[in-house]
Amino acid sequence: MCQLLGMNANTPTDVMFSFTGLATRADEHKDGFGIAFFEGRGLRHFVDHHSARVSPLAELVKRYPIKSDNVIAHIRKATQGRVALENTHPFQRELWGRYWVFAHNGNLVDFHPQLHAAFKPVGDTDSERAFCWLMQELAKAHCAVPTIEELSRTLAELTPRLNRHGTFNMLLSNGEALWAHGSTKLHYLLRRHPFGQAQLADEDLSIDFAQHTTHQDRVAVIATEPLTSNEDWVAFQPGELKVFVGGALFAA
Amino acid sequence: MCQLLGMNANTPTDVMFSFTGLATRADEHKDGFGIAFFEGRGLRHFVDHHSARVSPLAELVKRYPIKSDNVIAHIRKATQGRVALENTHPFQRELWGRYWVFAHNGNLVDFHPQLHAAFKPVGDTDSERAFCWLMQELAKAHCAVPTIEELSRTLAELTPRLNRHGTFNMLLSNGEALWAHGSTKLHYLLRRHPFGQAQLADEDLSIDFAQHTTHQDRVAVIATEPLTSNEDWVAFQPGELKVFVGGALFAA
Repeated sequence: MCQLLGMNANTPTDVMFSFTGLATRADEHKDGFGIAFFEGRGLRHFVDHHSARVSPLAELVKRYPIKSDNVIAHIRKATQGRVALENTHPFQRELWGRYWVFAHNGNLVDFHPQLHAAFKPVGDTDSERAFCWLMQELAKAHCAVPTIEELSRTLAELTPRLNRHGTFNMLLSNGEALWAHGSTKLHYLLRRHPFGQAQLADEDLSIDFAQHTTHQDRVAVIATEPLTSNEDWVAFQPGELKVFVGGALFAA
Repeated sequence: MCQLLGMNANTPTDVMFSFTGLATRADEHKDGFGIAFFEGRGLRHFVDHHSARVSPLAELVKRYPIKSDNVIAHIRKATQGRVALENTHPFQRELWGRYWVFAHNGNLVDFHPQLHAAFKPVGDTDSERAFCWLMQELAKAHCAVPTIEELSRTLAELTPRLNRHGTFNMLLSNGEALWAHGSTKLHYLLRRHPFGQAQLADEDLSIDFAQHTTHQDRVAVIATEPLTSNEDWVAFQPGELKVFVGGALFAA
């Protein structure tokens, strides 16, 4: 199973701690990794078809404190599509003058939608097909740039149509909000004042967030499995879509 | 003036030597840098709004031998648009199931085309507007995926319309071919057997390509100014569009 990691914050935050936790799980997920960081409207997008365990790129991400308000990372274990750079999540497209980033964990069976519009897959995964279809349907549903609320309503209609084809745990962001859909396995955590000590579940590493944060900071972390052993992770219900804005849950 | 660097080869080749040459010129071009590497249909895309002189990303590119058949790099000195990640070249879009990458050196005055189709700028540079317009016009001109020859013919019609608005030195690639348009300053070099010693123009560094190549290898390098002091660089004529495929000039 692939591993997903998402981060949404109200102040630019680095994900070195969480990404280190994710990368330790890369032993059995050696078919590539990717991570995308929004900085305002701008985007940094790193992909490598080497394991996050050995990739020099992953090493850079663990050491270079890139501060971002929306991050999506993915560690791949190939189910559909060859091990190749063009099949490595997260995927990226532009819509309405904003970059959109998407990562998927799961397997969609018999999913071959009509892609008649401006979004075509470059690789050959079910995941990129699902992303292109989502972008196409969002573009069809709204003629101008919609609000986060409107986008969330449309996505709540679209995600069950994907879920019907199989497992569809996914993360999607346009740099303003982060949408997360749980199908079989996805968890989230809201960090806010008072911040405490967090202990990585898989590695003998902990961090005291109180030393790195202010009272106003809010950070949401979304991951396939809880990354820390001493914090209150919440499991997504099957078919649940959640929207994160400014490090908190957005009530759509 | 920004600095452009392009590479097109018939066998995956690293650009560590040329990029080191380019990065030395980053002193007066401190408004960001970017580099995109095609690996087949896949793409690695690095951007940083820090100077290539100090960026940890640039350091990685100089040391990690990423082998690619088409590379576009850009070192920015801002003319239009703020210093921000979303204004950092090269820009990337998807068209016909292929990634397209674009970098521009120059300044387009009063260029505000109708962007009515699927390509909208995320940042606020004249360069990204020009790229979106090119993608839109390519998409309008061809209903299915055109050949390199057909694409070249369409681009030869479109580039003069951009050049009319000011300086338009540019590099464009879809991973199959690299198109280069010279307006005021652009040079290219064809390396092939017998390979020899190359000496960087700005730094006390040389490389013996004979030790790193086979008889069949062909590499085209395109740069704003010649990067080496002892090779036969050819200057683009004003308004000249050249197409590079497999490390050689493509006769369109």
